[in-house]
Amino acid sequence: MSDRCDTTVKEFRHRMPLQIRFNDIDVLGHLNNSVYFTFMDLAKSRYFEAVLGEKPDFGKAGVVIVNVNCDFCAPTFYDDNIEVETAVVAIGDKSLTLEQRVYSADDGVVKCRCRTIMAGFDIRTMTSMPITDEWRGAIEKYEGHKF
Amino acid sequence: MSDRCDTTVKEFRHRMPLQIRFNDIDVLGHLNNSVYFTFMDLAKSRYFEAVLGEKPDFGKAGVVIVNVNCDFCAPTFYDDNIEVETAVVAIGDKSLTLEQRVYSADDGVVKCRCRTIMAGFDIRTMTSMPITDEWRGAIEKYEGHKF
Amino acid sequence: MSDRCDTTVKEFRHRMPLQIRFNDIDVLGHLNNSVYFTFMDLAKSRYFEAVLGEKPDFGKAGVVIVNVNCDFCAPTFYDDNIEVETAVVAIGDKSLTLEQRVYSADDGVVKCRCRTIMAGFDIRTMTSMPITDEWRGAIEKYEGHKF
Amino acid sequence: MSDRCDTTVKEFRHRMPLQIRFNDIDVLGHLNNSVYFTFMDLAKSRYFEAVLGEKPDFGKAGVVIVNVNCDFCAPTFYDDNIEVETAVVAIGDKSLTLEQRVYSADDGVVKCRCRTIMAGFDIRTMTSMPITDEWRGAIEKYEGHKF
Repeated sequence: MSDRCDTTVKEFRHRMPLQIRFNDIDVLGHLNNSVYFTFMDLAKSRYFEAVLGEKPDFGKAGVVIVNVNCDFCAPTFYDDNIEVETAVVAIGDKSLTLEQRVYSADDGVVKCRCRTIMAGFDIRTMTSMPITDEWRGAIEKYEGHKF
Repeated sequence: MSDRCDTTVKEFRHRMPLQIRFNDIDVLGHLNNSVYFTFMDLAKSRYFEAVLGEKPDFGKAGVVIVNVNCDFCAPTFYDDNIEVETAVVAIGDKSLTLEQRVYSADDGVVKCRCRTIMAGFDIRTMTSMPITDEWRGAIEKYEGHKF
Repeated sequence: MSDRCDTTVKEFRHRMPLQIRFNDIDVLGHLNNSVYFTFMDLAKSRYFEAVLGEKPDFGKAGVVIVNVNCDFCAPTFYDDNIEVETAVVAIGDKSLTLEQRVYSADDGVVKCRCRTIMAGFDIRTMTSMPITDEWRGAIEKYEGHKF
Repeated sequence: MSDRCDTTVKEFRHRMPLQIRFNDIDVLGHLNNSVYFTFMDLAKSRYFEAVLGEKPDFGKAGVVIVNVNCDFCAPTFYDDNIEVETAVVAIGDKSLTLEQRVYSADDGVVKCRCRTIMAGFDIRTMTSMPITDEWRGAIEKYEGHKF
């Protein structure tokens, strides 16, 4: 098992509960792996809303996912009580890196942990673009430190 | 618009909040219709747990859906705050009927309303079976009246 | 079981194969009911493309689902070879009715049959509108008879 | 963009077409990232069936995903004609590594590429187990070389 599966608490500032659906559980009796990505997507979207203080204008400019690297640490069952934590952990010129984890709210056991690299992207021109100063400033303010 | 879309409050005893996911919203900007069925499924499963006082043993005996009839009353958006209500409204020898509705928790506007007919079914023998007295009694007790 | 579940062949002009995904199968070992609606949605979209001879401009005008009534006739398993058929069976001033069925391509057994009522809708103004003469004409031409 | 996104053809022996559903496309107009994982899951399942010459007995012994690392190379649209390729590229004592890619069947452009690490796992005892000689032999035979 990966070190990223340990339960040591990092200080995530963004956290939200997750609701499991009946059809999330596959024939093996576990939450299907693909469902974790829908959780990460939801949490990511809500994280950026919290950081930017408003709903991102997806029609204008934003970020797209270029890489995701996930460890599946423990199976999730239908009656598990789970949450997801999200933080930006690095910002480069043209990309930023998110760390996210889904864990049991009851005992802290990590279920899935993902590192996601997102690139600045202009929807109108369909080309990559730098992470804007506005986004960088908002993220640094939210996370409480410089990158 | 159907009468079933009106906001007149019927007394549902079972109610739960719903969590919308980013990928539930389709290219038209609305919650995709198929997602309502995953909500109805989740609520139905939790309803029967509440009624029976335990998690149903899906490997043994239960009910299967034979018909669903849904009105789509109003579009649901990503930031809507929605809930679902569930009640058994009829019990026959071999089937029972559920009424469910998804509505805005903010203004009570009904988004989707479904009537679902479920039949008794024995998973082991893969054949239909009567609604058991145990289920009938538990439902009548939960709903507070005879059917 | 409903009459709509019989295997009598009606002459549907639009037919397409369906691909089942691993995560479509739920913990009961069957294709989850909510998945049929994603099949109906896909088929409906391809049907209107075939009828109109072009991809519908979803940003302009179109149709929205107001009611769906489905019979679940037989369970679908991971290795089933299934197809879906679609036809408009009625056109009114402000709505049209679709008949669709998912069935086994091997033995013709009907798995799920849905009747869907769709209303004309203008996305720009978010108001209902009549079924246009263009749509009516294209559907009548495709189906080979007047409604 | 990652090197793993290049279109250089590696010789994958397992390949299958994919069917995109209307609700796979999210509000940004692209195939939602989480859908790629359902494609990888489907292809993985069919790959192991082809390798083992039979449907794996999921109730007995098998493999579970421990890590997935994916590059999202290009957006996928509703009308794209896509396929997925799968190969085992490494076998260790207790794990094996899969390489998979989704690409356009029209022009070969890679959409998404994933490297997945799976561990041997005994469903009955819920403990990890070595990759069996039966699996190793079958994979080597299918891929045409020793690992």
